[in-house]
Amino acid sequence: MVLEEGRAATKITPAAALGSTSATEKLLQMHEENHFTAGEVVRDVIMGVSDGLTVPFALAAGLSGTSAPSSLILTAGLAEVAAGAISMGLGGYLAAKSEADHYMRELKREQEEIITVPDTEAAEIAEILSQYGLQPHEYTPIVNSLRKNPQAWLEFMMKFELGLEKPEPRRALQSALTIALAYIMGGIVPLLPYVFITTAEKAMLTSICVTLVALLIFGYMKGHFTGNRPLLSAVQTAFIGALASAAAYAMAKAVQGA
Amino acid sequence: MVLEEGRAATKITPAAALGSTSATEKLLQMHEENHFTAGEVVRDVIMGVSDGLTVPFALAAGLSGTSAPSSLILTAGLAEVAAGAISMGLGGYLAAKSEADHYMRELKREQEEIITVPDTEAAEIAEILSQYGLQPHEYTPIVNSLRKNPQAWLEFMMKFELGLEKPEPRRALQSALTIALAYIMGGIVPLLPYVFITTAEKAMLTSICVTLVALLIFGYMKGHFTGNRPLLSAVQTAFIGALASAAAYAMAKAVQGA
Repeated sequence: MVLEEGRAATKITPAAALGSTSATEKLLQMHEENHFTAGEVVRDVIMGVSDGLTVPFALAAGLSGTSAPSSLILTAGLAEVAAGAISMGLGGYLAAKSEADHYMRELKREQEEIITVPDTEAAEIAEILSQYGLQPHEYTPIVNSLRKNPQAWLEFMMKFELGLEKPEPRRALQSALTIALAYIMGGIVPLLPYVFITTAEKAMLTSICVTLVALLIFGYMKGHFTGNRPLLSAVQTAFIGALASAAAYAMAKAVQGA
Repeated sequence: MVLEEGRAATKITPAAALGSTSATEKLLQMHEENHFTAGEVVRDVIMGVSDGLTVPFALAAGLSGTSAPSSLILTAGLAEVAAGAISMGLGGYLAAKSEADHYMRELKREQEEIITVPDTEAAEIAEILSQYGLQPHEYTPIVNSLRKNPQAWLEFMMKFELGLEKPEPRRALQSALTIALAYIMGGIVPLLPYVFITTAEKAMLTSICVTLVALLIFGYMKGHFTGNRPLLSAVQTAFIGALASAAAYAMAKAVQGA
């Protein structure tokens, strides 16, 4: 992560305190950029495209094993995309919203506890730090310093006691739209052949080819963005799609045969 | 969270260091149980049931607006449940696995850095603590102490620098099975009426009633478990189901009319 200018400037204090030179400063800044993890938007896109490519594809392939015509399979597939996009999108919205609410509730609770039971909260700082083999004479100055600075104390407890990060304000809406659009974009790919090919079986074969290629490409990119081996990720993603469509096909055959 | 006996015993040190009595000790223990957050299993169940109740329901309702007979709607619905359970279950498996891999990679990287660039890593401890307004004379003892204890240093960096928690070893498999089973259980509810009622429209009306009740109950429980207002959660969950099925219905009508 690249630091903002403001934070980079304040960083000179701690490093200087440990007697480091400006070369170490640079080292510290270069170093921070290495810990790359997939951002939340990337995670939402992956979730949406992943299910969008897989489920409507599998449903359409499954129905191709029945007597249903291409047009009905397309109808079912697009109805699934509409339902799935709304369910996953709004579900993501509520999840992000509920996470933000949870953060605010815990923040308020910690704030109250710092005022009403400061000794208990101070003991908690000591408890957290003692888990790392630190001794009372080492962490007591920190406990005392935080007690004098309630805002920093609150932030310390939120992060280190509860492990909660402050959520971005517009995160929920952004997450909902990202997941829904990604699901729709993923879902359209396997359904396109059913638009142009009227024989269900031929449409299914084209859909399988197109979607497997799409799953391989998407899996490769997913691996690249999440820091996993791209080729393994490509194979795994395509495998899930193949397994899901085989299951849907078998299920449709079984129900029709019953 | 209830502490294990072992950890509860070691807790006497920090609290005692701050001059607290056994009464404060008890306060600390009682206090910890208050910060309840939904466990990972609960989150998986919620995710599975939520989509399982919504998407197959909406798909079936959508197809009821077409000329498709009850048996084909049931086929499509069950094929969707099979595909969705596999896609979400295996998707959840890969996500948990990738998270665990990410943790192990970062652990190894931190371990190497503690050995190869200890000064940089020590400067990072200082940087983390200085963000809470702590002064060099307050945190330097901690930096020095962690440098003498590489294992604690590593754990400190994983939690405080990277914010990563050690994943449970069998988490991925457990997550996959939980999500898949929850999706199947959720998905069966709205499809049952199509098993017993051969007229698609009548089956749909029964399915809507049954599923709305199920969504309200599930939403209420979800609100209870995640610490949100249960009644609001019930209404929100049912609303998503209604919206998804309306969208699927409109989509199916539009495609059939085209």
